[in-house]
Amino acid sequence: MKVAKFGGSSVANAEQIRKVEKIVGDDPDRKFIIVSAPGKRHKDDFKMTDMLIQMGTAYLNDEAYEHYYSTVLQRFKEIIDDLHLSPSLMHEIERSIKGILAQDVDKDIKMDQVKAIGENNNAKIISAYLSDIGLDATYLNPKDAGIIVSDEPGNAQILPESFSKIYALREKEGIFVIPGFFGYSEDGKLITFSRGGSDITGSIVAAGVDASLYENFTDVDSVYSVNPTIVENPREITVLTYKEMRELSYAGFSVFHDEALIPAIKAKIPVCIKNTNNPNAEGTLIVAERDVNAAHCVSGIASDTGFCSLYVSKYLMNREIGFGRKLLNILEDEGISFEHAPSGIDDISVIIRERNLTPEKEEIVIERISDELHPDTVSLQRGIAVIMVVGEGLVNTIGVAQKATTAFADANVNIDMINQGSSEVSMMFGIQARDINKAIRSLYKAFFE
Amino acid sequence: MKVAKFGGSSVANAEQIRKVEKIVGDDPDRKFIIVSAPGKRHKDDFKMTDMLIQMGTAYLNDEAYEHYYSTVLQRFKEIIDDLHLSPSLMHEIERSIKGILAQDVDKDIKMDQVKAIGENNNAKIISAYLSDIGLDATYLNPKDAGIIVSDEPGNAQILPESFSKIYALREKEGIFVIPGFFGYSEDGKLITFSRGGSDITGSIVAAGVDASLYENFTDVDSVYSVNPTIVENPREITVLTYKEMRELSYAGFSVFHDEALIPAIKAKIPVCIKNTNNPNAEGTLIVAERDVNAAHCVSGIASDTGFCSLYVSKYLMNREIGFGRKLLNILEDEGISFEHAPSGIDDISVIIRERNLTPEKEEIVIERISDELHPDTVSLQRGIAVIMVVGEGLVNTIGVAQKATTAFADANVNIDMINQGSSEVSMMFGIQARDINKAIRSLYKAFFE
Repeated sequence: MKVAKFGGSSVANAEQIRKVEKIVGDDPDRKFIIVSAPGKRHKDDFKMTDMLIQMGTAYLNDEAYEHYYSTVLQRFKEIIDDLHLSPSLMHEIERSIKGILAQDVDKDIKMDQVKAIGENNNAKIISAYLSDIGLDATYLNPKDAGIIVSDEPGNAQILPESFSKIYALREKEGIFVIPGFFGYSEDGKLITFSRGGSDITGSIVAAGVDASLYENFTDVDSVYSVNPTIVENPREITVLTYKEMRELSYAGFSVFHDEALIPAIKAKIPVCIKNTNNPNAEGTLIVAERDVNAAHCVSGIASDTGFCSLYVSKYLMNREIGFGRKLLNILEDEGISFEHAPSGIDDISVIIRERNLTPEKEEIVIERISDELHPDTVSLQRGIAVIMVVGEGLVNTIGVAQKATTAFADANVNIDMINQGSSEVSMMFGIQARDINKAIRSLYKAFFE
Repeated sequence: MKVAKFGGSSVANAEQIRKVEKIVGDDPDRKFIIVSAPGKRHKDDFKMTDMLIQMGTAYLNDEAYEHYYSTVLQRFKEIIDDLHLSPSLMHEIERSIKGILAQDVDKDIKMDQVKAIGENNNAKIISAYLSDIGLDATYLNPKDAGIIVSDEPGNAQILPESFSKIYALREKEGIFVIPGFFGYSEDGKLITFSRGGSDITGSIVAAGVDASLYENFTDVDSVYSVNPTIVENPREITVLTYKEMRELSYAGFSVFHDEALIPAIKAKIPVCIKNTNNPNAEGTLIVAERDVNAAHCVSGIASDTGFCSLYVSKYLMNREIGFGRKLLNILEDEGISFEHAPSGIDDISVIIRERNLTPEKEEIVIERISDELHPDTVSLQRGIAVIMVVGEGLVNTIGVAQKATTAFADANVNIDMINQGSSEVSMMFGIQARDINKAIRSLYKAFFE
């Protein structure tokens, strides 16, 4: 029993929805189909959800919203017409949207209802089309699916009782098309997840029905071992562990929202990244555990820029119980989350995403550190790039660090920071952002060529 | 104007004191001579300070102390006789010790007075001998030298007003012999520094008189670039910076107590390690700054065993503001100081000296982490060795990490941990303690041969 989730580009128009129908029809195990709102049809297109947010905002501010409304309706109409579905479906959608706008509810509840229009009606359209083509498919509202969430508009959290309710769906006959992105609170209010929430719905349903596989259909053949804008035609990754995926996505691999996978990971459901436009490609399988081959213990190399390093040194720091804690406390006080904090004997560096440390915050933080911790030095360096070399078994394989550091030296790149050993599946390097491309190319050559 | 401090082995008997006299007489700049208590004359000998502590403890507990008393007197008598000094000096020492024992003061004050007997009388003997030989030498009591300390018996801290008092000594004629290890509180009580306190006195006097050089005479020609019990005849280090010294002493180089150097470092006084038994050897100079030669950017390799690693992992740890801080808070609560805390995205390792984490504390800490932080994993690994590769300029030299990691791979040693970038002058490696010797030999070969 499989759960297949189709992202925005996979359900952007009739042509894409026909591909979805083929994929669903091809495998009788594909029983739960989670769909996004229509995404971009081409590079400069709009995503329906963005349009809906603009419509909702305008409506709630008593501004003109009608052009957004028409654009949304027109988009649904095109899909329905191109799929040769009954015009009555279009009328139903129009009535339902009008009903949502007219309803007298709290602003944030209305906003969530508006945001969910894309997924909800796309699910209705797709289930109608699957039925039309002869499949035993039904639209299933998240409430009827058992997706019960906390009452936090725009940031719903799944409630534990959902999973047993969802499990009961296993017994029902046929294929279910479920809109992603939202659930219902215990008192029946529609509440959306955070952005990217169709992944969350897919992951919840996969965990709930104890799926044999959670397929995540998108528009790439697989996860690449390195950023393809830096290295041409890089190797595709066939199997990854959850941990590897997490470390890779951290530094620039953006296949999923991190949180989205949690329910599937907790239930140890294998996840497969597949391409709607090339469903025969093997894709990338993400699993709890995998065999490790020492000769190829590195799975991928991720990189991201936009980091800064806060450096604090004080003679005999390591004798001062609580120094590191006090420093992290100041950051916490100021609401700044940090990425890593490699500490030495008399020094500690805290790596922070630059976007989390505005110049104003920087000033406050540096002043507080000076006043409260009396360090010998405190300074901030911006423009740092982080590179993660990721692979299960990396920690127990002799020579990996040698290979990586040789690659940096070959590229004539200075390593500002190495952090190995805190994670079992990754080595982290900090370098100057300007050196990122040559460093990545040299690492790729060392580990994959 | 130089300050020369002579350690216990340099003033252990008449033969050694004659060497001191030669050294002092050789350089008219050597004006302030700080002396320790008589140390070991051979490997199985006792140190006078240990004997004095036993005597004091026995006396305060109303136990038999007379055999310790006789041993101490005998040791002084031998030195005085061998130096052909006047027997009246011996009578004076005997009277003074009896006076200390008889005095009615608090136990901890008496203990400090007893502990200081070694340095104080050795200074009297040495100044008498220097005078005898024709030098203009005077014994100078720390009170008269201006060494004013906090009223914390056994753990005196220098008070800031001392330094201007000490500076006034510059104006006086002649050579001053000052006993190390103790000062006086503002109300005139004798208070000792922590163990190894003669180094502290030397450093304070050097800072106070604004010495051109603080010479620390001991029984080795210089600081070696690596532990000579692991590598035979290793290279001697001629110049080190304070920071390098600190990083090296951290992991097993035990030339100084770390704290001892602080006053000299703050005043930027150059420090020289010299050998009383071979005063013509160049020694090792420790300075605030030095020229960096990229080809020889590594100064030394230090290593120490007896570490353990506390590993905590939790999915999405880096999204949880305050996780690292809460973890360090638990350790602080339990009075456990940690060495380094390399943290990754979802993982943090805290390196702790094994002696700071008893099995009982381990149990408490792991339970608290589980209960309070709800991690996915928490575990402790013992038997870890730490290796520090130390050198100014190391951070900005391309290829150092490559050289080091290649040395580990050549020795077939797995690297459990790398921490580079928190300190500007060192790279830290964690390995299994059993691999320490082969790793160190391979690193030495890579960087020094």
